[in-house]
Amino acid sequence: MSETKNSAPSRPLARTPRGFIDRRADALMAERSVVEKVLRVYESWGYERLETPSFEYADALGKFLPDQDRPNEGVFALEDDDGQWMSLRYDLTAPLARFVAQNWDGLPKPFRRCAAGPVWRNEKPGPGRFREFWQCDADCVGSARPEADAEAIAMGADAVEAAGVPRGLYVVNVSNRKLLDGLLAKIGIDAGDVRTRLGVLRAVDKLDRLGAQGVELLLGAGRKDESGDFTKGAGLNPAAISQVMAFTATRKATRKETLAALAEVVGDTELGGEGVAELAAIDATLAALGLGEDRAFFDPAIVRGLEYYTGPVFEVELLAETVDDKGQKVRFGSIGSGGRYDDLVMRFRGERAPATGFSLGVSRLVAALSAAGHAPQARSGPVVILALDADAMAGYMQMAGQLRGAGIAAEVYLGQSGMKAQMKYADRRNAPIVVIEGSTEREAGNVTLKDLNLGAELAQSIDSNEAWRKERPAQILVPRAGLVAAVQDMLKR
Amino acid sequence: MSETKNSAPSRPLARTPRGFIDRRADALMAERSVVEKVLRVYESWGYERLETPSFEYADALGKFLPDQDRPNEGVFALEDDDGQWMSLRYDLTAPLARFVAQNWDGLPKPFRRCAAGPVWRNEKPGPGRFREFWQCDADCVGSARPEADAEAIAMGADAVEAAGVPRGLYVVNVSNRKLLDGLLAKIGIDAGDVRTRLGVLRAVDKLDRLGAQGVELLLGAGRKDESGDFTKGAGLNPAAISQVMAFTATRKATRKETLAALAEVVGDTELGGEGVAELAAIDATLAALGLGEDRAFFDPAIVRGLEYYTGPVFEVELLAETVDDKGQKVRFGSIGSGGRYDDLVMRFRGERAPATGFSLGVSRLVAALSAAGHAPQARSGPVVILALDADAMAGYMQMAGQLRGAGIAAEVYLGQSGMKAQMKYADRRNAPIVVIEGSTEREAGNVTLKDLNLGAELAQSIDSNEAWRKERPAQILVPRAGLVAAVQDMLKR
Repeated sequence: MSETKNSAPSRPLARTPRGFIDRRADALMAERSVVEKVLRVYESWGYERLETPSFEYADALGKFLPDQDRPNEGVFALEDDDGQWMSLRYDLTAPLARFVAQNWDGLPKPFRRCAAGPVWRNEKPGPGRFREFWQCDADCVGSARPEADAEAIAMGADAVEAAGVPRGLYVVNVSNRKLLDGLLAKIGIDAGDVRTRLGVLRAVDKLDRLGAQGVELLLGAGRKDESGDFTKGAGLNPAAISQVMAFTATRKATRKETLAALAEVVGDTELGGEGVAELAAIDATLAALGLGEDRAFFDPAIVRGLEYYTGPVFEVELLAETVDDKGQKVRFGSIGSGGRYDDLVMRFRGERAPATGFSLGVSRLVAALSAAGHAPQARSGPVVILALDADAMAGYMQMAGQLRGAGIAAEVYLGQSGMKAQMKYADRRNAPIVVIEGSTEREAGNVTLKDLNLGAELAQSIDSNEAWRKERPAQILVPRAGLVAAVQDMLKR
Repeated sequence: MSETKNSAPSRPLARTPRGFIDRRADALMAERSVVEKVLRVYESWGYERLETPSFEYADALGKFLPDQDRPNEGVFALEDDDGQWMSLRYDLTAPLARFVAQNWDGLPKPFRRCAAGPVWRNEKPGPGRFREFWQCDADCVGSARPEADAEAIAMGADAVEAAGVPRGLYVVNVSNRKLLDGLLAKIGIDAGDVRTRLGVLRAVDKLDRLGAQGVELLLGAGRKDESGDFTKGAGLNPAAISQVMAFTATRKATRKETLAALAEVVGDTELGGEGVAELAAIDATLAALGLGEDRAFFDPAIVRGLEYYTGPVFEVELLAETVDDKGQKVRFGSIGSGGRYDDLVMRFRGERAPATGFSLGVSRLVAALSAAGHAPQARSGPVVILALDADAMAGYMQMAGQLRGAGIAAEVYLGQSGMKAQMKYADRRNAPIVVIEGSTEREAGNVTLKDLNLGAELAQSIDSNEAWRKERPAQILVPRAGLVAAVQDMLKR
């Protein structure tokens, strides 16, 4: 330490780490308000708040991220001073599994929990793709019932609506991993052949993006994309490929029709039959809860990347089209997802603890709402009291205190600049009103109130007629003793 | 990856990392509710929400923690894949300095910001001492005015009261680093003699804990504590020690008296004079804002550990006495602190950006409130609908949906156990009401409602007289169609 004491300090560069961002008032409040609304929905469904720490021991967290080709396999990890490796959580589900296993005997079962908070991914950052973002989850551990899956789906739909997505602008697409597992058994792929299984899952997952032809290539030898990059395929033979493609074509207009089509294609396999029966029970519960096809749709091509899913899986798709940097219309895609993960707690306990849940991508949802023109309104700033006389500061501070006492956000300008700069400051603070007390006002026992909202309206209005101006003047002189009442009146305008 | 595929997986142990904890519903909600109330106070003072990322580049974060003898000097750090070191923030102030320096030209100045979130300290964990905890801060950057310091103090007091600490149970103790700097100059300690300066600061900081005698030892040769550990002292001569002790005795009953005493002891030095003048201006503003000595007190012995403070410093002391594990009465001590740090932004920019702020230790405050008997009430759980018939699940789910539609939290039991276990489950969920629809009820078009709150009251009451029981029966049979209204009635009791 002492070695560097006398060397001239070099200035650090002020910058956020790569892939991390600062969130300022409006964007932040939009996110937090979504989180609050969504948590309130989860709690109304009986889900109890729980917050696990940011860190988990690496072995407890496990490795379930879809892309494991990054350093530390996609997580931020460090070695504690006792030699144990800890990782920042990459989602809220793996820590829940650890919590449930650790507290099994003391928990009411099934255990419903909800949580919101940041998760971290050690991934290559990109536009709109950050290495720290918020998720808002609800999970039910200890129930194998399909009603629990249906609940996750219906609650997800409720949550998305509470967050501000109008009905009709989203749909929950539901499938079941067992359907595809039945299909794989039928075309002779061994359950232990992880590589081929994953290859098929990933190919089917890309149906929306690549179309049937692209998926067929990925199921077979492989596919070269527009940039020339080649992705190796799952290596199926033509007969198997056509059966997988028949499977992806079971998506029909209604849940009942899809169920019938699925029964035909995979219903004769053990797993496929189970999958269809579970979806049928989910359909019945969704109907009881009043969710039609416009809100919850069966789409057998839905796979979801996370490897811990074992049964029903679903994702919430935002149907709004937005425009990208190049003016191209783009579908926003998934803003939340979920599914059943019956083996995650078993990693710790050795016995099954069936579980299912839903996770909402908060930042993604807010970005989607903004892009679709549903951004929340910016909030008004505080009333700003100008600081015109150094000797009168105590009085200015007192005014602010009185306004706050009446529930009105208020502050005194505390810089050293003149009146013009102070007015500009108030404007940048989005202040609705400026309070001015110069020496003339003070000697007469008055203050001047300036209505900045009105100023902004007048500046925008072409027809700024004088009569209206008089009725609602942009600036009034009021007795100092009547400050609070006058501000209240002006804010009510 | 493929190498380990065939080895039998060993089960990870389910445990939280050392020094980290899970927070469950009641404790978590108590913390979050404090955060919300405190942020609302900050916002009413004109402070704008801002959230910086968890990570900062290590050089941008700097090294300002009091204990630098731990690995990574008290922070959690890791190397990014581009070779840059990143650290998890150890407070919310250092990241704010980085943000302000990075966005200087675009910010309204002075820039008032508030923030709440977790911070991480790579410290040895202990009882009640965690390595991840929440802070809730408000800072004003760009104002050198003492009114900004007074504002931080008064706002801190408001925040603590909003969080639920009754007036009279806390006091904000205020001092100014310049007082001590003036004193050090007076007794001939060079400003560049960092080691002696820190030694004196730390000794004075321990006045409350060690008493005058202990401080005297630490100012001189050193002190052996009860366990026999020796702490090396600042090495002052006896004359200097007596001047420092005279300084610590300037704490008087009123702010005005303390100011007079301080003027006498250090007012004749340049820095001491500045310090007294700043405190006098702070006193005037506090008086204008209505804060008497019962809320904001001048205590020249207050130092605060963080090394970036340059002027006024303060801490919020909880006055409640609590009882420790051994039944000993203990003072809870500091639940929040703040001060002026004029050089922190300058690290990046080269020119001064004066700043001052306040930081509340959320977890500590909630723990203190609980220990002092002011813990918030546990919230009621959801209405629980029992699952008695597998065939009737859709109907049960529908009931829950109808209750939620009326704004009542409700859930269906989704396990596989019998009625007795389900009742026990409802009890553990803190359910106010259980809804029971067996086949008898269903055939008659009825449901039974069981009032668990009443059950709990009856169990506690000695005088369980029959008349009262009839007027408010613990269990009623109602038509299925009247479920929602009947539940609403029962909740209103």
